[in-house]
Amino acid sequence: MDRREHTSVMDLASIFAPVRPDLDALDRLLGDELSADDPFVGELVAYILKTRGKLIRPALVCLSALACGGGTSARLEVAGAVELIHVASLIHDDVIDAADLRRGFASVNAIWGNQVAVLLGDYLFSKAFHMLARLHDESVAASVSEATVKMSQAEIKQIKYGNTPHTDETIYFDIIEGKTASLFSAACRCGALTARASEPVAAALAAFGLEWGMAFQITDDALDLTASPEHLGKPIGSDIQTGKVTLPIIHALSRASKADRQRLEEILDGADGDRPAPAREEVEGILTRCDAIEHALAAARARARRAAGLLDRLGESPARESLGALVEFVTARSR
Amino acid sequence: MDRREHTSVMDLASIFAPVRPDLDALDRLLGDELSADDPFVGELVAYILKTRGKLIRPALVCLSALACGGGTSARLEVAGAVELIHVASLIHDDVIDAADLRRGFASVNAIWGNQVAVLLGDYLFSKAFHMLARLHDESVAASVSEATVKMSQAEIKQIKYGNTPHTDETIYFDIIEGKTASLFSAACRCGALTARASEPVAAALAAFGLEWGMAFQITDDALDLTASPEHLGKPIGSDIQTGKVTLPIIHALSRASKADRQRLEEILDGADGDRPAPAREEVEGILTRCDAIEHALAAARARARRAAGLLDRLGESPARESLGALVEFVTARSR
Repeated sequence: MDRREHTSVMDLASIFAPVRPDLDALDRLLGDELSADDPFVGELVAYILKTRGKLIRPALVCLSALACGGGTSARLEVAGAVELIHVASLIHDDVIDAADLRRGFASVNAIWGNQVAVLLGDYLFSKAFHMLARLHDESVAASVSEATVKMSQAEIKQIKYGNTPHTDETIYFDIIEGKTASLFSAACRCGALTARASEPVAAALAAFGLEWGMAFQITDDALDLTASPEHLGKPIGSDIQTGKVTLPIIHALSRASKADRQRLEEILDGADGDRPAPAREEVEGILTRCDAIEHALAAARARARRAAGLLDRLGESPARESLGALVEFVTARSR
Repeated sequence: MDRREHTSVMDLASIFAPVRPDLDALDRLLGDELSADDPFVGELVAYILKTRGKLIRPALVCLSALACGGGTSARLEVAGAVELIHVASLIHDDVIDAADLRRGFASVNAIWGNQVAVLLGDYLFSKAFHMLARLHDESVAASVSEATVKMSQAEIKQIKYGNTPHTDETIYFDIIEGKTASLFSAACRCGALTARASEPVAAALAAFGLEWGMAFQITDDALDLTASPEHLGKPIGSDIQTGKVTLPIIHALSRASKADRQRLEEILDGADGDRPAPAREEVEGILTRCDAIEHALAAARARARRAAGLLDRLGESPARESLGALVEFVTARSR
């Protein structure tokens, strides 16, 4: 399969068209919610709002709600809380990884130091839970807080096991499910809950978010090892450089030829985040010879197919179309 | 007034006698709640539970509930959540202060590094909010999350303004109210809420927690500058050493003689956490000559008196006696 193939997949802005008014309202809501009387906290918050990302998680909340009939404006509060949790976790991730850049901007820790970054993350987490508490919907608060428990637990596991070469795919799937997919799942589930969807429909959307999140992360990790920089939007092989053991690496460690495996172990062993990434061609050669990238992308496509199947439970609507288009979006990246 | 005076104040164990069964049940609850299938997370949690502190916040939750008639076992869940939030904030504080010791044990960051400490704090915060969400009492969740918002906001302000010499007491009171008193206040309020207390009674207990928390922190900060090590249980002048501007310092910066003020500014200016603390006698001399310690302790006693007055709204009970004894406890430290 040609990974450089151009598809006619919609871009995110088009996919999010049904929730564009929601996402605009969300901007205002977060601006109001985070407005601070202290000028320094205000400066931090303004920077956070300026450097926000693609808003995939809030869009999923709102699309899920609209796909279940729309419901109340509570979906905006949930969307805001989920986005704040995501932002808080990124700020803490950047402290943990000592990362200087996030979304093309200097990271919070790079500008204001680790102390402020740890506390700003705590502040945004707290704000998120305060927004959820005010909703008076304990199922939503329970679902989102359960996701954040899983996120932090998975990140602890990633620090402990994520950089040790191993051949056990379940460790990898377990970590990315907690770290990434659980919040996507809670976003979809809680969107449905704000629209008073039945439990089977909410469960189907939760499963959709989980499968879609797995497809998203597996693809992201595989492309880190192989995509062209333009395709990916970040430096190649940043995971190899930090010794992160993702699905293609696990596959190669169990399936590559003895020589390739030894060389890959050497490369991982030398990874310390300080030295330059090994030649892209060499790593890609090892992974290609044992079909490791294709193995990972096939796993992502299988997850995406499961996600698509779960949408059958929903009636026709522009929002459902968008959820389907998101599956296409992640599948196109995995080709 | 003689600060070495011995009073017949009850110790915390005696004060907490009415909630001893609750605190024992809390041990089991937290053990169950934090049990992890992952051995590494389990190791971290076991360490946290082993090194727990005096449980003042959970005791305040339970005493407040019992003083309002007891209510349901929900008070244990709230007590557990409040304690986890406190522990999470301490773990993050130790990252921020690069502290190696906590309660006589090595800090989490000292043993497992900053990465694990940041994530373990996030994990405990999330667990706390998950426990609160399951309670199905949004007033409790709103109150506790509001306190954590204030805590993180105040800690950000402390980093920004807390080490800059100034003469504005309101900055200091604002920071300690957010950092310390807000969680004590939420603990008392939520204890009352779990016992279905009327709003005026819950508000009185919230105000009690706030005033008591202010008295507690003002005293703690004043004793840091003056108490004997045995009295305090930690090294003298650790705040001076890190340049922290607390109430006696603020008082001295506005009221001391010109020579004393200049010397104090020099000492604060040289504080960087690396050099040894200045001679205890010199700092204490400056502070004593302008009555700075007594000024701070008088402020603490005034807060304690207000706390005591708020208990008039409660009927007689052993739990109310204990809340009164806690006021005595903090007042005795401030003599």
